[in-house]
Amino acid sequence: MADINTCPPLTRASVQDAAHRISGHVHRTPVLSSKYIDSVASTPQSPESLKGTEWEGQEPAKPRLCLLFKCENFQRIGAFKPRGAFNALLRFTEEQARKNTASELPVRIISHSSGNHAQAVALAAGELGLPAHIVMPSISTPAKIAATRSYGAEVHFSGPTPQERLKVVDALMSDTNFHNVFVPPYDHPDTILGQGTLGLELQNQAAEILPEGEALHAIMTPCGGGGMLSGVALSCQGTGVKVFGSEPSQDGADDCRRGLLEGKRIEKVSSLTIADGLRTPVGAIPWSVISDPKHVAGVFAVTDDQIRRALGLVLQRMKILIEPSSAVPLAVALYNEDFRGMIEREQGIDTTFNLGLVVSGGNIDLKRIPELIEL
Amino acid sequence: MADINTCPPLTRASVQDAAHRISGHVHRTPVLSSKYIDSVASTPQSPESLKGTEWEGQEPAKPRLCLLFKCENFQRIGAFKPRGAFNALLRFTEEQARKNTASELPVRIISHSSGNHAQAVALAAGELGLPAHIVMPSISTPAKIAATRSYGAEVHFSGPTPQERLKVVDALMSDTNFHNVFVPPYDHPDTILGQGTLGLELQNQAAEILPEGEALHAIMTPCGGGGMLSGVALSCQGTGVKVFGSEPSQDGADDCRRGLLEGKRIEKVSSLTIADGLRTPVGAIPWSVISDPKHVAGVFAVTDDQIRRALGLVLQRMKILIEPSSAVPLAVALYNEDFRGMIEREQGIDTTFNLGLVVSGGNIDLKRIPELIEL
Repeated sequence: MADINTCPPLTRASVQDAAHRISGHVHRTPVLSSKYIDSVASTPQSPESLKGTEWEGQEPAKPRLCLLFKCENFQRIGAFKPRGAFNALLRFTEEQARKNTASELPVRIISHSSGNHAQAVALAAGELGLPAHIVMPSISTPAKIAATRSYGAEVHFSGPTPQERLKVVDALMSDTNFHNVFVPPYDHPDTILGQGTLGLELQNQAAEILPEGEALHAIMTPCGGGGMLSGVALSCQGTGVKVFGSEPSQDGADDCRRGLLEGKRIEKVSSLTIADGLRTPVGAIPWSVISDPKHVAGVFAVTDDQIRRALGLVLQRMKILIEPSSAVPLAVALYNEDFRGMIEREQGIDTTFNLGLVVSGGNIDLKRIPELIEL
Repeated sequence: MADINTCPPLTRASVQDAAHRISGHVHRTPVLSSKYIDSVASTPQSPESLKGTEWEGQEPAKPRLCLLFKCENFQRIGAFKPRGAFNALLRFTEEQARKNTASELPVRIISHSSGNHAQAVALAAGELGLPAHIVMPSISTPAKIAATRSYGAEVHFSGPTPQERLKVVDALMSDTNFHNVFVPPYDHPDTILGQGTLGLELQNQAAEILPEGEALHAIMTPCGGGGMLSGVALSCQGTGVKVFGSEPSQDGADDCRRGLLEGKRIEKVSSLTIADGLRTPVGAIPWSVISDPKHVAGVFAVTDDQIRRALGLVLQRMKILIEPSSAVPLAVALYNEDFRGMIEREQGIDTTFNLGLVVSGGNIDLKRIPELIEL
């Protein structure tokens, strides 16, 4: 990767540069809406449904929501990750060219992932003519291994724990016969700025879609490592569009929300939430953005049961496939009374709150759909 | 319904009139494509995969296909049926107004269906301010009954057989306190012309999508009662775009294909194919169009296993939900060597055959996805 000291500053202008850089390599994914889901979101929850929650006995909030779904499930590899991977690798090749210091040693792109990041790096490296070496746990599904290989990457296997994975990465990185370049999944400015490009697109698409005179009020994204949330927050800098994060609460996977309360990043999470893309704690560089209230106006959590219901609603009504992590922002909009109450207070009289929801990906295990949804 | 003798002729111009009539009531659904599925369709099948089929030992065909998916799964109620329902009911109200013979008796719209047609009639009647009475088998899923009621229709229950359903319909129709109007699911010119409007849209959208100088060569649709296939065929009249039908072969559900071979419509089918929207035999009026080789250039069949594979491919790669019936045209394009060989012969040297595939709907039973797909 490009040396972190030479990286562009974490600003909206840098996200715009990234968008220019990766255009032609990624899709401008569509923004979809559902009148039915808007009507569900704009109907107060029943007092009964709040029983047993922290909001029991409270009067249900009455937000009026218009939801715009930014559909990165239609992105290449089925998730937003190629934005960051292309930005990182293109920045690397630009820097090599500018310095005119192309090393004598052959370049190797190295990364590790059990999921979408592996395929994104494999795709970007392959398309830019760089050999990719991806470390994957040997228990990864054959489909994921085959997909990573199909982009031309060499797959190296490790044991299932993060420690075992990093050991294999370290071995690759220390091979001095190569110029080894590591691409981290979220904890790097180039990755963050690349992921943020989807926020710019959503702002432009909302302006095309919304009636004359109406504006996008806010965007809510899922939050795992925080690369995308921080990038989207930067993309909204100075626009007046608020940015929110959303997490699963299962087994404490809401590390970002809890860290904000404690004023300190939580560095370890061990959760088996069905939102498997969000089991990671927030990285240090994303945290530097997210923990600044000027950038992110709040982070909200939902239960796995609420994620199942939101996921079922999207599949049944919108006829698109999304992964459980991508149902988390909708679950917050539908079921989190703190969020809904805040929207009710913020929305003007007789107006609707226009909320963009980032659908991060569509790589759901099709054979497990019945256990992942609640209808 | 409008008296059949006063119906517009079965021509492309009548489909254009229908499109004008129903615009504003139905969505112009998107046309999607998948480079990956194009590459699969443009790769010859392996000789091994033809073992045990009628093409065993034959050299696999080498078509080059560009597939354009017309996505009626994103249509209102999740399927194409509202096109015909709106056209039929709007024609009825226009005729009443023109004749100035609105009866003294209150109008009731009556239909029967266990599936998409019920909801389409309920939606159209509700939106046009007409009371709808829908006969459904009492074994219908609660979700379908609730959906039909949610459009304001009154649901009447019957036993599971077609005979039992028709008995309840007859009882409703013979109530002389009302002006009862029956809306058939496919065997009526107004329905056929309404469904055909998706063919016009696809022709226009293909012209927008395909590179300068390239044209849509053909459209393939699923074929159940034949209302949509015949309507799409009429929409292509005089354009040079060929039209093909596709059916499941399970338990002889390929009645249209077999009828064309025998030169005679097959009136009875009893099949439990997973393509449950295509278990119906072709109706008499659709047959009058489909059996004319000037309108429909061929009808092809695939097995349920092939439908499962095509369905899995769409869900996994395109990230959209479609019902099993909607995977039938793709299954023909991927696995039917008669069709593929014909395309190979028809396509020009070094050119690609641009084929529109109609995705009829997305109302798949989410809880049954694992048994409905093969990955």
